[in-house]
Amino acid sequence: MKPLEEEGEANSAAASKENKEEPKKTLDLSKVKVEPLFEKEVDFDTFSESDFRVVKVKKCQEVPKSKKLLKFTLDDGSDQDRVILSGIKSYYTAEELVGKTLLAITNLPARKMMGEESCGMLLSAIYDYDGEEGLDLIILDDSIPAGAKIY
Amino acid sequence: MKPLEEEGEANSAAASKENKEEPKKTLDLSKVKVEPLFEKEVDFDTFSESDFRVVKVKKCQEVPKSKKLLKFTLDDGSDQDRVILSGIKSYYTAEELVGKTLLAITNLPARKMMGEESCGMLLSAIYDYDGEEGLDLIILDDSIPAGAKIY
Repeated sequence: MKPLEEEGEANSAAASKENKEEPKKTLDLSKVKVEPLFEKEVDFDTFSESDFRVVKVKKCQEVPKSKKLLKFTLDDGSDQDRVILSGIKSYYTAEELVGKTLLAITNLPARKMMGEESCGMLLSAIYDYDGEEGLDLIILDDSIPAGAKIY
Repeated sequence: MKPLEEEGEANSAAASKENKEEPKKTLDLSKVKVEPLFEKEVDFDTFSESDFRVVKVKKCQEVPKSKKLLKFTLDDGSDQDRVILSGIKSYYTAEELVGKTLLAITNLPARKMMGEESCGMLLSAIYDYDGEEGLDLIILDDSIPAGAKIY
């Protein structure tokens, strides 16, 4: 599976769009499918090369001309703002994510998307729900401080 | 920094123990320190070797004779229960974690701790608070299904 950011603009999860305005529903678990667990192990040192951090959303904006991308300005616990783009506009509005506490991998190489540079990736939980892609951004308790390291 | 599970039993975060019974407090952010962000990048393929999953706590028990370990029996979305041991007994009681939705890496090699085999690691956010280790288990919204894959 490719990261969300690498999916084409055309591949929008339109069917989930209307969920934006609806309250959170209880899933019918008989309709949930998840990717099989990896059989291949990873050693602890390889796992530890990734830097996962708690981040706070300072700003969140729609990216002009993009059907999927939201642009996040984040507090990652350092002195500098971090910008991450994420292809989740069909699941969330920009407004509802401002102030949220999220989880990011912060040391992926920066990459350009729709002319904007993204420094890392926000983490989401992905599953198949009745043939559609279900996606939940990882949203944490607001009491956890920005920059906290995930172990 | 080593994984929590590898810390000696003697190295218990006793000072945090009393937090168990207290309601969640707002942190004084001037007392929070976090580990500097990694300068070294990780490529996407290396990141992707780790299998992160949403798990549900079916059972949680104290490990006899261990000052730190809790033993979790988890639903990882597969047919088989997964057991993970985690050294967080000074932060949480076993009872309060039953039924919670957590985040785990599921494809680390299994390892024995205090005679029990642990298959993976539960993820927590770690920071320094006024000279003590602050730890928050990553607790997710219960609507996210077990086995959902993190991307």
